[in-house]
Amino acid sequence: MNALLLIAHGSRRQASNDEVRELTKALAQKTNGDYSIVECAFLELADPLIPAGVSACVEKGAETVTVLPYFLSAGRHVVSDIPEELEKAQALNPGVNIKTAPYLGSAQGISEILINLSKQAS
Amino acid sequence: MNALLLIAHGSRRQASNDEVRELTKALAQKTNGDYSIVECAFLELADPLIPAGVSACVEKGAETVTVLPYFLSAGRHVVSDIPEELEKAQALNPGVNIKTAPYLGSAQGISEILINLSKQAS
Repeated sequence: MNALLLIAHGSRRQASNDEVRELTKALAQKTNGDYSIVECAFLELADPLIPAGVSACVEKGAETVTVLPYFLSAGRHVVSDIPEELEKAQALNPGVNIKTAPYLGSAQGISEILINLSKQAS
Repeated sequence: MNALLLIAHGSRRQASNDEVRELTKALAQKTNGDYSIVECAFLELADPLIPAGVSACVEKGAETVTVLPYFLSAGRHVVSDIPEELEKAQALNPGVNIKTAPYLGSAQGISEILINLSKQAS
């Protein structure tokens, strides 16, 4: 089974973490069956943290975990912190194949989304 | 003339600020003539700050400035800090119409972008 794991920074503000959880539910409805498990995890400040998020996927039967970094720039979190946490997760779950997708801010479609948003300005 | 002003958080890491500047150039090429001025500004840590970014648009002839918050969640920055800075900018430029679009993380298309990114995982 394939799992998709959305990783966000995490916030002291619970509503921000809940936005990530809602997005995770939306993702689960749009994977077209490519991923039977869709979870989220946080780098810090909210649960589950990344190793626990990977373990949750594995406990549900994931053989592959595809990580989606929900970050806008290739800063320290994307370049160093998330890979380090994924190494810990890999050590805890040696049988699982953990892959990482490009971070959100690098996606081609962002500028089109922004242009569309600009039409809703008030 | 209409201006589009992308507002990002700003980072101590120049490469992150440069990512925002590159995105601003990409935006400028995709506005289909709706905006003759496309600029970026930062909430903190990088130049121009928000009031200077609005002023730059006005100096180029903008009568309307549409602000695009390049943020993933409706945290303090989106809810309080950016509106406060825009109030300062409005006071400096009383003749300009400043409008604010929904923040990036609230956009419908984000989950599709994430699904597409997941296919590039390695």
